[in-house]
Amino acid sequence: MRNTSVRSRPWSIVLGLGLGLIATGALANDELMQMARDHSQWVMPSGDYTAQRYSPLDQITADNVKNLHVAWTMSSGSLRGHEGQPLVIGNMMYFESSYPNHVYAVSLDDPGRIVWSFTPDQNKFAPSVACCDVVNRGPAYGKGMIFANALDGVMYALDAKTGAVKWKAQNADPMLGQTMTMAPLVVKDKVITGVAGAEYGVHGYITAYDIDTGKQAWRAYSTGPDDQIMFDPNKTLDGATQKPVGKDSSLKSWHGDQWKLGGGTTWGWYTYDPKLNLIYYGTGNPGTWNPTQRPGDNKYSMSVIARDADTGEAKWVFQMTPHDGWDYDGVNESILSDSTVDGKTIPTLTHFDRNGFAYVWNRANGKLIAAHKFDPAVNWASGIDMKTGRPDVVADKMTKEGLNVKNICPSSQGSKDQQPASYDPDTGLFYVSTNHVCMDYQAFNVKYKAGFPYVGALVNMYPADHGDVGGRFIAFDPISGQTKWAVNDRFQDWSGVLTTKGGIAFYGTLTGWFRAVDLKTGKVLWQFKTPSGIIGNPITYTHDGKQYVAILSGVGGWAAIGLSNNLTKASEGLGAVGATATLGDYTNLGGTLMVFALD
Amino acid sequence: MRNTSVRSRPWSIVLGLGLGLIATGALANDELMQMARDHSQWVMPSGDYTAQRYSPLDQITADNVKNLHVAWTMSSGSLRGHEGQPLVIGNMMYFESSYPNHVYAVSLDDPGRIVWSFTPDQNKFAPSVACCDVVNRGPAYGKGMIFANALDGVMYALDAKTGAVKWKAQNADPMLGQTMTMAPLVVKDKVITGVAGAEYGVHGYITAYDIDTGKQAWRAYSTGPDDQIMFDPNKTLDGATQKPVGKDSSLKSWHGDQWKLGGGTTWGWYTYDPKLNLIYYGTGNPGTWNPTQRPGDNKYSMSVIARDADTGEAKWVFQMTPHDGWDYDGVNESILSDSTVDGKTIPTLTHFDRNGFAYVWNRANGKLIAAHKFDPAVNWASGIDMKTGRPDVVADKMTKEGLNVKNICPSSQGSKDQQPASYDPDTGLFYVSTNHVCMDYQAFNVKYKAGFPYVGALVNMYPADHGDVGGRFIAFDPISGQTKWAVNDRFQDWSGVLTTKGGIAFYGTLTGWFRAVDLKTGKVLWQFKTPSGIIGNPITYTHDGKQYVAILSGVGGWAAIGLSNNLTKASEGLGAVGATATLGDYTNLGGTLMVFALD
Repeated sequence: MRNTSVRSRPWSIVLGLGLGLIATGALANDELMQMARDHSQWVMPSGDYTAQRYSPLDQITADNVKNLHVAWTMSSGSLRGHEGQPLVIGNMMYFESSYPNHVYAVSLDDPGRIVWSFTPDQNKFAPSVACCDVVNRGPAYGKGMIFANALDGVMYALDAKTGAVKWKAQNADPMLGQTMTMAPLVVKDKVITGVAGAEYGVHGYITAYDIDTGKQAWRAYSTGPDDQIMFDPNKTLDGATQKPVGKDSSLKSWHGDQWKLGGGTTWGWYTYDPKLNLIYYGTGNPGTWNPTQRPGDNKYSMSVIARDADTGEAKWVFQMTPHDGWDYDGVNESILSDSTVDGKTIPTLTHFDRNGFAYVWNRANGKLIAAHKFDPAVNWASGIDMKTGRPDVVADKMTKEGLNVKNICPSSQGSKDQQPASYDPDTGLFYVSTNHVCMDYQAFNVKYKAGFPYVGALVNMYPADHGDVGGRFIAFDPISGQTKWAVNDRFQDWSGVLTTKGGIAFYGTLTGWFRAVDLKTGKVLWQFKTPSGIIGNPITYTHDGKQYVAILSGVGGWAAIGLSNNLTKASEGLGAVGATATLGDYTNLGGTLMVFALD
Repeated sequence: MRNTSVRSRPWSIVLGLGLGLIATGALANDELMQMARDHSQWVMPSGDYTAQRYSPLDQITADNVKNLHVAWTMSSGSLRGHEGQPLVIGNMMYFESSYPNHVYAVSLDDPGRIVWSFTPDQNKFAPSVACCDVVNRGPAYGKGMIFANALDGVMYALDAKTGAVKWKAQNADPMLGQTMTMAPLVVKDKVITGVAGAEYGVHGYITAYDIDTGKQAWRAYSTGPDDQIMFDPNKTLDGATQKPVGKDSSLKSWHGDQWKLGGGTTWGWYTYDPKLNLIYYGTGNPGTWNPTQRPGDNKYSMSVIARDADTGEAKWVFQMTPHDGWDYDGVNESILSDSTVDGKTIPTLTHFDRNGFAYVWNRANGKLIAAHKFDPAVNWASGIDMKTGRPDVVADKMTKEGLNVKNICPSSQGSKDQQPASYDPDTGLFYVSTNHVCMDYQAFNVKYKAGFPYVGALVNMYPADHGDVGGRFIAFDPISGQTKWAVNDRFQDWSGVLTTKGGIAFYGTLTGWFRAVDLKTGKVLWQFKTPSGIIGNPITYTHDGKQYVAILSGVGGWAAIGLSNNLTKASEGLGAVGATATLGDYTNLGGTLMVFALD
């Protein structure tokens, strides 16, 4: 492991025209938006601001994908969970490993040639407060810089040419249980990031930094007084009611000071609508998993929030799971697309929530358009009330202190967790890696102490119906709620999805199979056994006119926490271990970049 | 990491006929010798007892190797150097990672499916006394068991079907600087292993254990009294003179008790001649690298020894480098073949020594047949005196205390280190991965303290002529001393070699390229960029009638000690770091099994 060391070679040798031409003084998002239109590259963590993770590249097709082979490979130098993806900028690829968060700049002209690498010198306490493995979800690019979040809460701005640190910002403090696992989002002249640690009573927030200096531009908390959450009582809309939220809308939903430990952390994938100038993100579980300790709706945990990218002011908010009793974080990504409803085209957000419902909103105002179960196992709520936006909770699946509530579906990992879905504009369907896992949940009283776990529940997870299907890769229509087809897998499908104009969806299994699936039929057209289980996200790009597909193989994350932490028997496992107790029979820890191409 | 944990599944599901039929009560070597004739398998670390690492499999040829692709992959779960190779027994593959020495049993019917895995609970002090990375060179098979050496000196006999520990033997003690990195050799009813640690004043030895019980059968030291070294003064031959060694031949070559710290460790690849019932192995450097502290020939460090496999008695010995002043360990493998000299066919041993000379002996009596430089850089000796067997040392390249002797070639890593060569019976040539590296060597006085480094020299290594060729992959005739061709590489070629009837040699580079080379011309016919640098050894086998080639990718070892220990700048580097200071620009740590096949 190299500490805060940078090795570089003369940039001129590897610099391609692509990057050279665009790294000018223009606003980062002008540049990025132009770059994102060039589908030979993959310039943002989610491909572009829509997070559709769709590529119009079509050299690799449903017909020829059977001829896909490994083109080159590169170890990440880290054994733990890799939940990210590479960026492709010009003739360079950039990616970040799990902790210790090695960042690599790799030449595509000389595959695997490391132009520079960077490893931050981190607060060594960070790994011990990362709830769910020491994962990382990748770097971001903007204005000639690579923005990399380190687990210990420091965001680094690195010169894309040399790896030199241009600035760094301390966004989180591991001594308070705060960590940073997500990919930043670059919007205009700002780099936006969130924080993790709701299992440690962290008071969640999102922060925008000046792209040139790293100076904080604005910070908005998820819970608390209106000024801290940057809500305008008279303007910020409650998506469910389409009315302003009113004064102290968060404070009123908590008892006493509990909001200060309110969770609502912000570690998912962010999206952005340039026309509306709104960023979209979700907030996680309220502080302590024991709902009895925090009466009320616990706003704005478990919510999707739309904020003005320049000012941070909230435009609208929608809470999916008021008074959460299941750890159904609302952090999952909200994908931008156009939806046709009653013959009208509406700019929508589609959000596959951990609570098992797929929400569709008008992204201008948060008005709910549809909300359907996307996992047949879901039993904690019978549906979402379209008038109030609230779930119809099944009474005997509500948890409370001292009670062991059995067979709640989904589990705390949700019907989908952070693994990002994909939207294919040709079929109009969403392709989603899902979890098909249920749980027993026993809440208990817990006291807060800074930097110590503040969980307050014992959870035991297992595949739905205690069966042999733990994951389903689905094609889903969120407007009708119809599942077009499903591929059943033994364990949770925890990888992201890529769809392409070639008629293929790519995803990976926890057991390490990387697959190409026919978008229309769900038929597995091709698969390859990668070195480790896959929880990363496929991307595609071209180099010298040839299409490549890349994926980070490297099992871990919450799904494989037993394997990561050497707890391989169900009997050893509380929490998530039970659902993947036998995963070690199929795969192994180890981070590897795998790049595929047709012969 | 799992500690002493075994995970298994019903053997019946994966058990193939191959193993079922042969795992009977026969002597392990009868069984092994029969198995070794079946080239669909790879049943010993070196393929068979000859260590030719040649396979008559010929589906993959010089013509079609361009169509070779990655068939499947599996992470080893360990980041450090992988100097071993898998075994293939029936429909199972077995391999071992670098420390923490995970051992895997993998189904070939369901590639990557882990039937069982085993990780020993080790003395945590062991990694800190491993001189040259925490490498491992693979397990051995015999009598239904997998024999795996752990770095901390414990040999484990594991049930090949279940991974259950049948017995274990404490062969070495890390508290004394002893470690174990080599692959054991199974001969008849014994499992034979050596020890590493000559940089810690270890008194080297080789030990045979009963295959069924793990009870010590015999142990022979490398230095000291005749009974300890198991030499018969009247019968054990000095290969050079062809006369018995006489009484106290080792003791007389040391001053005082220095032989007790005498080094002569035994961590290389062992071979065996069933007809002669002799095992062959080499001994390493004498204790302390400072020659001034140990006058004399320092016998039998730096020697090849032939011992009776049943009794351990030495049949003959040949010391390559008397009174070593360069750390030219004699541990390299001695390959069995037949050589034609003056029209007569002689059963020979061929040994590419670290000192840069390729020795050919009559393997019945140790008589020297040929000794030629195989690295053009060699300058410490002008040649080997064929009458005395001693090197003609170039006076100003002899090191001594207080003097910094410059530009000695080869470096302490030798013109070849442990990386095993291959012999192709069709061309009659040896194919050798070599180092083309020189050094400055400054000896200094050092005091012995158990468990602490006892090196006594500062060494600085660099490519020969300070050029850009650090490794040469060569085709060599050891009788004539002729190099037929050479492939030049940037860094040391530290991987083993496989030759096949298909007319191909396979080897890997420190930068991670796995290559197929035309045996006749040296033309690189095909190459693939593996996840990490290659210091492992290629093997080949068939499964369901189809030929596969497998290699462990995973850089480290002495060659890449800078990368392993995070010393990436030449300026940081003493010792071996300088020669590979820029290796981190090309590759990364990470252990991965890579399996290749034609489409």
